[in-house]
Formats: sequence, C-alpha cells, structure tokens
Amino acid sequence: MRITTAGESHGKGLFCIIEGLPSQLFVDCEKINAALARRQSGYGRGARQKIESDRVEILSGVRNRYTLGSPVTLAVFNRDYSNWEAYMAAEGCDTAARRLTKVRPGHADLAGLLKYGGDDARNILERASARETAVRVAAGSVCRGLLEELGVEIAGYVKAVAGVEDAAQYSFEQIRNGRLSELGMLDTDLQRAAMKKIDFCKETGDTCGGTVELRVKGLKSGFGSCMTYREKLDARLCAALLSVQAIKGAEVGIGFDTAALFGSEVHDEIYKEGGVYRRKTNRAGGIEGGMSNGEEIILRAAMKPIPTLMKGLGTIDYVTGEEARAAAERSDVCAIAACEVILESALACALCEVVLERLGGDNMTEVKERYGRLP
Amino acid sequence: MRITTAGESHGKGLFCIIEGLPSQLFVDCEKINAALARRQSGYGRGARQKIESDRVEILSGVRNRYTLGSPVTLAVFNRDYSNWEAYMAAEGCDTAARRLTKVRPGHADLAGLLKYGGDDARNILERASARETAVRVAAGSVCRGLLEELGVEIAGYVKAVAGVEDAAQYSFEQIRNGRLSELGMLDTDLQRAAMKKIDFCKETGDTCGGTVELRVKGLKSGFGSCMTYREKLDARLCAALLSVQAIKGAEVGIGFDTAALFGSEVHDEIYKEGGVYRRKTNRAGGIEGGMSNGEEIILRAAMKPIPTLMKGLGTIDYVTGEEARAAAERSDVCAIAACEVILESALACALCEVVLERLGGDNMTEVKERYGRLP
Amino acid sequence: MRITTAGESHGKGLFCIIEGLPSQLFVDCEKINAALARRQSGYGRGARQKIESDRVEILSGVRNRYTLGSPVTLAVFNRDYSNWEAYMAAEGCDTAARRLTKVRPGHADLAGLLKYGGDDARNILERASARETAVRVAAGSVCRGLLEELGVEIAGYVKAVAGVEDAAQYSFEQIRNGRLSELGMLDTDLQRAAMKKIDFCKETGDTCGGTVELRVKGLKSGFGSCMTYREKLDARLCAALLSVQAIKGAEVGIGFDTAALFGSEVHDEIYKEGGVYRRKTNRAGGIEGGMSNGEEIILRAAMKPIPTLMKGLGTIDYVTGEEARAAAERSDVCAIAACEVILESALACALCEVVLERLGGDNMTEVKERYGRLP
Amino acid sequence: MRITTAGESHGKGLFCIIEGLPSQLFVDCEKINAALARRQSGYGRGARQKIESDRVEILSGVRNRYTLGSPVTLAVFNRDYSNWEAYMAAEGCDTAARRLTKVRPGHADLAGLLKYGGDDARNILERASARETAVRVAAGSVCRGLLEELGVEIAGYVKAVAGVEDAAQYSFEQIRNGRLSELGMLDTDLQRAAMKKIDFCKETGDTCGGTVELRVKGLKSGFGSCMTYREKLDARLCAALLSVQAIKGAEVGIGFDTAALFGSEVHDEIYKEGGVYRRKTNRAGGIEGGMSNGEEIILRAAMKPIPTLMKGLGTIDYVTGEEARAAAERSDVCAIAACEVILESALACALCEVVLERLGGDNMTEVKERYGRLP
Repeated sequence: MRITTAGESHGKGLFCIIEGLPSQLFVDCEKINAALARRQSGYGRGARQKIESDRVEILSGVRNRYTLGSPVTLAVFNRDYSNWEAYMAAEGCDTAARRLTKVRPGHADLAGLLKYGGDDARNILERASARETAVRVAAGSVCRGLLEELGVEIAGYVKAVAGVEDAAQYSFEQIRNGRLSELGMLDTDLQRAAMKKIDFCKETGDTCGGTVELRVKGLKSGFGSCMTYREKLDARLCAALLSVQAIKGAEVGIGFDTAALFGSEVHDEIYKEGGVYRRKTNRAGGIEGGMSNGEEIILRAAMKPIPTLMKGLGTIDYVTGEEARAAAERSDVCAIAACEVILESALACALCEVVLERLGGDNMTEVKERYGRLP
Repeated sequence: MRITTAGESHGKGLFCIIEGLPSQLFVDCEKINAALARRQSGYGRGARQKIESDRVEILSGVRNRYTLGSPVTLAVFNRDYSNWEAYMAAEGCDTAARRLTKVRPGHADLAGLLKYGGDDARNILERASARETAVRVAAGSVCRGLLEELGVEIAGYVKAVAGVEDAAQYSFEQIRNGRLSELGMLDTDLQRAAMKKIDFCKETGDTCGGTVELRVKGLKSGFGSCMTYREKLDARLCAALLSVQAIKGAEVGIGFDTAALFGSEVHDEIYKEGGVYRRKTNRAGGIEGGMSNGEEIILRAAMKPIPTLMKGLGTIDYVTGEEARAAAERSDVCAIAACEVILESALACALCEVVLERLGGDNMTEVKERYGRLP
Repeated sequence: MRITTAGESHGKGLFCIIEGLPSQLFVDCEKINAALARRQSGYGRGARQKIESDRVEILSGVRNRYTLGSPVTLAVFNRDYSNWEAYMAAEGCDTAARRLTKVRPGHADLAGLLKYGGDDARNILERASARETAVRVAAGSVCRGLLEELGVEIAGYVKAVAGVEDAAQYSFEQIRNGRLSELGMLDTDLQRAAMKKIDFCKETGDTCGGTVELRVKGLKSGFGSCMTYREKLDARLCAALLSVQAIKGAEVGIGFDTAALFGSEVHDEIYKEGGVYRRKTNRAGGIEGGMSNGEEIILRAAMKPIPTLMKGLGTIDYVTGEEARAAAERSDVCAIAACEVILESALACALCEVVLERLGGDNMTEVKERYGRLP
Repeated sequence: MRITTAGESHGKGLFCIIEGLPSQLFVDCEKINAALARRQSGYGRGARQKIESDRVEILSGVRNRYTLGSPVTLAVFNRDYSNWEAYMAAEGCDTAARRLTKVRPGHADLAGLLKYGGDDARNILERASARETAVRVAAGSVCRGLLEELGVEIAGYVKAVAGVEDAAQYSFEQIRNGRLSELGMLDTDLQRAAMKKIDFCKETGDTCGGTVELRVKGLKSGFGSCMTYREKLDARLCAALLSVQAIKGAEVGIGFDTAALFGSEVHDEIYKEGGVYRRKTNRAGGIEGGMSNGEEIILRAAMKPIPTLMKGLGTIDYVTGEEARAAAERSDVCAIAACEVILESALACALCEVVLERLGGDNMTEVKERYGRLP
C-alpha cells in the first residue's frame, strides 16, 4: 500500500491516491468527515478553521461504499478557493498579489525559496502548510477502517500543552472514551490550566505546542522486522509521526526515560497466560527487536509551537534584503488538539502499510483470514 | 543510493552492498577499520569485543581505492566463525547444540519465533543481534568519505549514561576534538561518574544505556523536502537513528523541550550576514519545513540498557512452557560508546542517500560540481 | 519522479499525481488537450469516443502555468458520468444494474473476479479498461514538455495494421511531420489498404491490431545503467510500453531480427565527427550496455486486436456457470492510432523518470544546466 | 523480495543479497551449482568458461540448508582472481596494465566512459560484462526452489540460432525433458544445423545470437495486476528478460504475431472443466489484463550476437582519438545456450518477487498455505 498526497493550502483542494488497498473494504464517508471535523476543532484555533468545514469526496476506487481494489482517490476541496482563484489558478493568475517575501522563521519559506527558485514564498508555503494533513486524515480514516476490521484500534490524547503535563498512566479504554472535546486531554483540571496558557499566548501574541501520546491495541506480534533495518517497526512508525508538520521528536514506550534507568528497571518480563505470551510491564511500548510483541503499542511525539506569531519574529525581506518582522499568515495559537488527530491518522496510514505488506491479499476476505491465522 | 545489509552474528560474517555510489569516490580501508575499532571500543564492553577485531574487506565496486560506479560490496568476516561453523554452517550443521529456548525479554527472540517458526531462538538472534551494525559502520564510513568531499562533516558524543547527564552546550569543534576515548563523553568528571555507574551495573549484574547527540556541519540548505511527507529530512534522519538496535527515541534540535516553551522562545530569527542567511539561534536543529536550513543539524537519540542481564530476567522456556530465567548470551554492561559510533554511521548513510537523490550525478566530479553550485 | 494513476472508466474521471517534478516547468493545458484529442481520434474507433471529448483539469502543483515543485494532480473528468452515477457512485448506487457476468476472453474479467472477489466483472473492467490511459496521456504530455526543454523529442507512427506493414525506413523528421491523421501511418497507399482491413473487420464483427514504432531524438548518452540490472534503459522503456493495455511485445532497434543475423551485420561501428562520437548505423536503436549511446532511441511494440468482438467469443457465465457469448461492452474495431499516442506518452513518462533520476535538481534552471553540462 | 547483485568480471567474485525470503525455505547448493554449470556449458563458448568452474558459496541467511528469514548472501568467487589481483585489487593495484581504450561497439564501453569518467574502459566492462549473470543464476535457483514448493515450474529452450528456427509447438514436458545438452534446442537435426552456423562464425571470426522460449507451468491466476500499470505481469516479466545482457526484444504468447491477425484468431475462448476455468487456446501466453490467467505463461526473447568479434569492428581509440579495430576481450562465438539458462533465472527471480508480494508470509508454512488457498 502507498499513499501519495497533493494539493495546496489555497488551491482547488487537497488530494490523495491510496494504492494497494484490498477490494471489499467498507469506506464510510461519514467517518472520514467526522475525522476531518475533529482535525478542525480544538481550543486555540484561528479564523481559517471556521471558513473551512472540510468534507471528503471520493473520486475513484470505491463503488457503492466498498473498495474495488483499484487506487482510491480522495479529495478535500477548499471551500474558499473562489476567493483565491484569481491568485492561484493553474491556467493563469495574478501572482503579483498575495506575495510573501518576509520569510517566516520556523517555516519552509526561506529554504524553499533557495531550493525551488523565485522570490515569492507563497509558492512554497502553499504546499508546506499543514493544510496538507487534511487529506492525510481522510486517508488515515480509510486505513483505520481496515485495521478495525482486523481488531486493531488506535487512540490518542494530548499529554501536555505548553508545559502543563498530565503525568498519569491511562488504559486504552480511558484514552478512547475519556478524551475531552476542547483540547483532547483527559484531566479536566489540567485541561483548564492548559487553556489558560493558550489564553495567555493569545493575549501576548505568542503560540505554544505540546505532546501527544498514541496507543495501538489489538495488533498481533511480528509486525515489522528484526531482519532488515529499514523495516524496523519503531523506525517506520516514528518516521510517520515525524513526517507531520511541527513534530520535533518521537519516542516508543518510556522512550528517552530508558536512558536513565537500569536494565532491570526497563525490560518487560515474559509470562504465559492461557497459552498466550504476555509482558508483566510494557515499558518497551509493544515493540521489541523492531517488531510488535503483542502488547499495546505506545508512542509519544512532541509538537513545537506554531511558528507564526501575531507578535511577529525578526527576519529578512527576501526581495529587499532588509530586516523585517515576519507576517502572520494565519492566527492559530495552539493546534495540539488537531495535531493529535493528525498523528493518529499518520500512524494509521503507516501501520496499515506495514500490515498489508505482511499479509498481502487482494480482498478483505483474504486479508482477514490471513490475519486471523497469525499466532 | 541504497544500502542492503546481511549476515549473522556467528555466521561467516556481515555483508553489505551499497548501490548507486558515484564513480571516482576515494575509499580508504584504514578509515573504515578505524571506525570499526571505535565501534568495538568503550568502557563496559564484554569479552566478545576482544575476540573480534573487525577488519573490512572490499569484495566489489572498488578498484585501486576508487569506486567504479558499480555496487560496492563490503564484508566484515567473523573471526570466531571457525568455532561456530559446526553449529551455523549453511551447507549443514548441528542445530541441536547452541539452542536458546528461554526467550529473552527486550530481544527479538519471542516475536521472532512466533513470526519465523521453529523453536530455537538462535535462528532469530543471530540476525537480530547488534552485530549487524558492524557492516553499517563500514558503509557509514564510505558515505562519510563522500560527504566530506562536499565539506559535510558529522560528529557526535555521549551526552548521558545511566542518568549522568552532561547539560552543557558544545560547539561542533569541541565535539569533534574533545571526545574522550573510554566512553565518548566530553566532560572528564561526568565521564568518571558515568563509569562508576557502569561499574555498579557490572557488580549488580545489571546494565545501562544513555543518550547520544549528533551534529552535521556544512550541509547546505534545501536537503529533504517540504513537498512530500515521505521525504521530510527530520523523518528520514530520525528513522535512520531508530533503525539502530536499542534506540527508543529520537529528536531534532531542542526536540521534546519545544513542547513546553512558547513560540517566541523556540523559533530561530533570521538575519543576513555577508550575503548569507543565518539564524540567531538553532533550536530547530538545522531543519525547518522538512528541509535543512544551512545551520548545523542537531539530533539526539536515547539508547535503552542492554537487555541481556547477568542477573537474568523472568521469562518462559519456549519449548517446555515453564517459567525460567533468561540466559546471558553476551556480557556487555553498557554499549553507549559503540552506539554513538553506530548512530554516526547510520546518520551518514541516510544523509548520503538524501544528498545523492538531490544531486544525482554519475561520478564525483559531477557530484562535487553540482553541490558547489547549490545556493 | 513517480506517476500514480487512478480512476474508473465510467466513474467520476481519471486522475493522476506526478511526484518529483522540478519547479518552474511550463505546463500547457492546450498541449495536453491536443494530446487527449489525438488519443480519441483514429479510424476504427467506436461511439464512446464521440461522447467523451476529454479535457484535462489541473487540480494541484501548478500555479500560473508553472509547476511549484509540489505534486501535480491531473484530472480528466468523465463527461458521461451523469449517466452512470446511479450505477457507479462511491457513496451508494444500484449495483444490480449494468452487471457483466459473461466474462470476456482477452480481458481482465475472469482473472480479476477470482482475484478481487464478487461476481460482477463490472467491478474489474471499470479499472482494467484502457480508459485509464487518458490520464497517462495527460501526464505524458507534461513529461514531454520537460524533455523538450532539454532538447529531447519523441515521435512515433503506426508501422503495421492487421498485416498491412510499412517496411520503409524513415527519418525522425519524416515521422514527426508525416504522420497521417486518420490512422497515424506515413504511407498514403498503405494506410488506405489498412483502412480497408478495418472496414472488413467492421463488416465481419471482428477486430485488429498493429505495430507502432517510436523514436527519441536528442537524448544524450549515459541514461540508464550498465551497473544495475534493474536500471537498464531498454528494460525500463520496454516495460513502460508493455504496461499499456493490449501490448504483447516490445523490441529495441532491429530487435528480434538480431537473432537471425551475424555480429558483423548487427553491431554499429563507432567513428568520431567534430569531436562527437557517432555510429555508422543504428541497429542497436540507441541503447548499448543498458544505456543510451547518443543515437536515436528506436522502439517497436505490438498491439493485439481489441478483445471485444461484435461477433462475440465463446465463454462462460460466471454466475450461472453456463456457456455463453461474451457481450460487446464497446465497439472499437481498431485502436492502433490511439495506441500510438498512448505509447508515446508511456515512453515520455518513463524517460522523464530516468532523466530526472540522473540529473536530480529542484527547479528547471538547475535541471537544464545539469543536462547541458553532460558530455 | 528484492535481489541486489554486485561484483566485477575479474574481481574477487560476483555477489548478491536476496532480501525478503521467508524462513524455512530449503536451499540446495548442489542445485545451484548445477545451474551454474549449465550457464557455463553450451556449444560455441570460449576458453574463459573452462577456466571458471563456478561454485556458489552461501555467506549468510541460511543455516543447515534452510533460510532463516534474514537476507541471503550468495557468492560466486572468481577462480582466476589470483591472476587479476595485481590489476584489480580494491586496496591498490596497477591500473596501467590491462587497459582497454579501443571502445568496443555493442558494449557499454563508450557510453560508460562518458558517464563514469576516466579513460580506461576496463573500469566499465568489468561490471557491464555478462559475468554478472553468474550470481543471478544462483539467485534464480533459490527462487526456483521456492516456486517449486508451490508447484510452479519453469522450463525453456533455444528456439532459434542464427536464423535456424524451430517452428514446432512443444508441451511443457517436452521442453523440460527434451532439452539437448549442446545447445539447448529440442530438435536434433535443427541443432546440428545451428552448430554448423556456429562453426561458420568461428571460422569467419564472426558471432551469432538466437531466440529463447520460456514457459511457466502451475502458476495460479491473478498474479500481477489490472489495477496499477506498474504491476502488470507482462511488463514485469519482460523487463526481467530485457535486463539480461544482449536481449533486444521480448514478447508474450504469440507476441508480435498478434499484430497481423484478427481478434477472432487471437483471443482464447473460455470454458469450464471440472469446476476449473480453462482456455481452448493459449495465444495470450497465460496473461490477460496484466494478470496470470491460470494457463501456461509463454515468453520469448531475442538475443543479439555477441558484440566481441575476433575479426574486430571499426571504432575509435578513446585516448588517441584515432580510428582502430575493437579488441577481442573474450572469444565466445555464441552464448545462446547460456543465455537460455540466464533467462530462466531472471524469470524465476522476477516471478518469485511477484508471488511473494501477493502472498506475504514470513515462513514457508505460511506461504504454502496461502498459495494453496488461492482460487
């Protein structure tokens, strides 16, 4: 399976093609739209999210709500394209307007201009924008549907916002059912404190980020590989998280904490229960030797604060070469709640790819049967 | 460029093929052997490292010390294969001996047996072993040679061992020149404290890990991509680190710390100096929008303690199904110094791949010229 | 560069995403539409071609007629989707109608049903249909634009139809300028004879195919590789031709004729003219040792007769298991003229991929400069 | 599964790594050596083949004759390396000797020098040489072992030599059992005539080629894809054949002949026999819609005459720029018998890759079970 995304932030829309899905997979547009809505929600989001109320349109690969085995094309059309057509149209448009030359720190603007040429960062930011993730969330929802038919579930929550951290341990069920709407945290008091931080940022024209914890339940052991370094499950899943805009770190299980502990405090002893191998603890986060071990997969990622500050940041005007303040292209203060949804989606896409590589299979009957037969 | 590794821990040796290297690249066996020696050094290593004094043998792709443009095959033959031939030979051997059935926590043993079948974890651990990295270090040394011809250097050091952390900031030159031999740290006192921790582990039959910081100097901007999520430089480089055995987390720049700070404390303001764009700070670790930005690349990785404890860990005998203590296959207490070398190599391999994708080029003259022309 | 296509014959349309194109490439919709029109033209085509007058729509990756360096999404919407929506809609439709169960010899119907499940070959043929090539022709036109900026041109003609063969040798210019509109042949008398054959097929409810010859002019030497079997230029270009529906054979230069000749009659002697290496003959078709050698690339492909015959073919009803006559889903008698256009496009796509792998480059300025510097 | 080859003609040897093989696959060195011997046999071969009596050595991935699931490394060491070490050694050698500057028509020499630089075609021909196929034959033998465990067999024969063609149709069994030793043809009289042609070439200092027909028996339907053009079975298998040195054309079923026939003469009508779908004829060569259809796969390839003629060919000295006669590096007159073995191997490798992509599976038990369950 391979997912290819395309589309610009203010272009006609965002698009993706999912190759290699089996036939007979049920595709539920309402589920996809619900995921798209979750991506747009969250305390601290700006005006743009109100304009856009994303809906998926399936352009190919699905007939009467089931996949055909042919490539699935998903589209999330930009509602406000009509307002941008004059400046973005492929066939011809006014590129003198809507220019951005005060390259913004923390964005792709400067490196992008040096790489792709020209002097209008509009041509860079339109694709580099996290708007790209809209269609990855749509694809992730399809992948999630496949995983759920195998009994594999994904859940996540916001663990920390701007330093307000929830140190508690939660069960998969607590995470799946307990996620609070505004910010995706699990503890009401901590979330209230986090929202105060966000309010403070809004007042001071600043921004903030946070950390997200993700879990995968029901994945059998043996996904990934201990034989080829390129196929290590931890490397592939973390790479998926790090491919999401603004993510600066990823870890598995207790992650960086392992570095400070003794082996006897880190490794998970094995026992057998009803013929099934289990671990007494799960500090490994469900991955040993580059493979799933049957326990819950636990991943954590860190999101940096949104790089566009209302207060502006010092930079250079790419055209005049003079010092300048970076313009604020959009006004989110904190997108951690959306980021959590996006990370769940990126994880679903990567995991689905790993699962189908191992199972092969042309249709869901085969895929489910093969998964069922795994030890 | 693509690197494929092969080989078992007690088999004939470790092997790799590097496809897609340009011709005319100077390959220095002594440099490779020096890297292999560094990989085997370090306080806290066990007896095995003494047995093996690794030397590279070039089997193809190089003539008179220069690459031909054909695939380069590297071999690191196992010195003690003669002692293992009777139990490992491909053509036929005694598999009743040297069996391992008490599956070891923290290793690939259990998931591997369930995945690949049989009941002798020897068949799993032989490949899953970190011995595989010997040939990745050899390949990394070749890649490093290419990068150095472009003026791109890599350096790293051990930042923390078993909780003894060096919080200081160091320049690239300090790291490259200041690395202490025993453990790869930069501060003598902290290293002494770390070595005490390792001694304590040895006494108590325990193990420990640590963290490593890596830097890349001289890389121009624009490597990686803001256009395709699969090609984000941060995702690709961190995946390379996470593909190394025992690595449980990776971060870029200030990484996880970004989650607790405000945007104004995180993003690096841009200025221009002598026609060159620079950042006042480098919290981004040299990567913005999935691309290098011309500043130093800064990466950090966490290594878990070695999972084989002399004191043993509770587990199950895969054959009898009875409770057991995991056997100690080897006796390293801490391999963080080796891990640092391996991570430098994995980074060199991944970076070389990214660089050649952008530059193309069939021979080093072309590659250097193209790199020189980049902004 | 990578081209991913999607879409069903009677679905919303055909779609593709082109990843890895440099920025600053001029994209001319009129050229693309002209290519689409050529694909629909040709003596012997059926009613369907009249219904559909294909037009490309660029959904992403292009702004003001130049690529951004982001993935380019092309769409060719199906004009008659409104008539099919009730039977094809992704969100829900009537699958009881428009069923095809008399599996058609020469089509994917039977193997597809066994592979993907279900009992309605409609779910197979919708994607297997050569309608898929509409968007490959669109992509090919974009790739061709890039190649032309490097001075690389592609031309082709129909060499034989239903046994009426044009044995003459033609120059690149004769082919590019002399292509006759009705059938894409170069000789008026032979084309008239070929058209008679097609008329005969129409009368008898039969079909016919033919052969196509393709040429590439202006490609420098060294594209492809003699170092890696997977990258042999002949293998890659012929695979592109064979990936087109109904193609049963492909050859390079004098191809199969080489098998009957002596070495002294086959190989092209080398001489030097004005500092440039040339061949006295070009029986190798411009490819030696898996690489272009600077001479014209010459390829030939064989197209089988269209497998849907009005007279029908004996088969089995997949549902009832009874003997049946295959239904005629569409009524082309000969599509060789369209096939020639499609093969040019498939060749352009594959060649563009090979060219960009060697050149790398992020924008057209770089790409052109690098090509210009090649020997 | 992925096969990577390496090695030079007069270097230490030829090497390959096969990634992605399941565990528990029986690997029979004697079978591999038998295939290597067949590759070296055949009427019309030169002295080199006597020097080298190739034997495989398994360097990794196999223990006690069964695969471990880890990458399999195969080596075919060059017996006469000792005579070449002084001119080929990686660590340092005399490159002033054994130079080749009279670039040979039909070889990679000239394009290779322009691409990889330098002025000694020795650096090009060492890898471009068909000697590379030794290790592909070894890999092919391993892949064949896997296919045979699934009941999939491959056989081939030499259909024509220098214009002496065997027009008869043969059954799979006739081909498998009837192959004559000297030249790999099936008809004694025709082979005698072909050998006369080869004698004539030897006398006149000329060379010749021929055509090979390959068959695959026992492959179930549905391998390959009608959904993605890149995965069409015909394209992938023919590309494998065309990746073999000296192959200038490939076709499926009746191939190029389809172009001259009517649809009613080409397509294979379907019937059902004992619940199994069959074709009354097999002009499609077992592939419809880019997928296997359950009938025998039939492929044909054309080999050009060996480009090194004792009589020499006109060329240019790359160093002096003066006209010259190309030197004869080796003295085969006809290698069609070897080519047939190599093509069988290349086909086995490509087919094994396709099969494992569809089946997935970590060990042979799983792979066989999944294949058995396919319709």
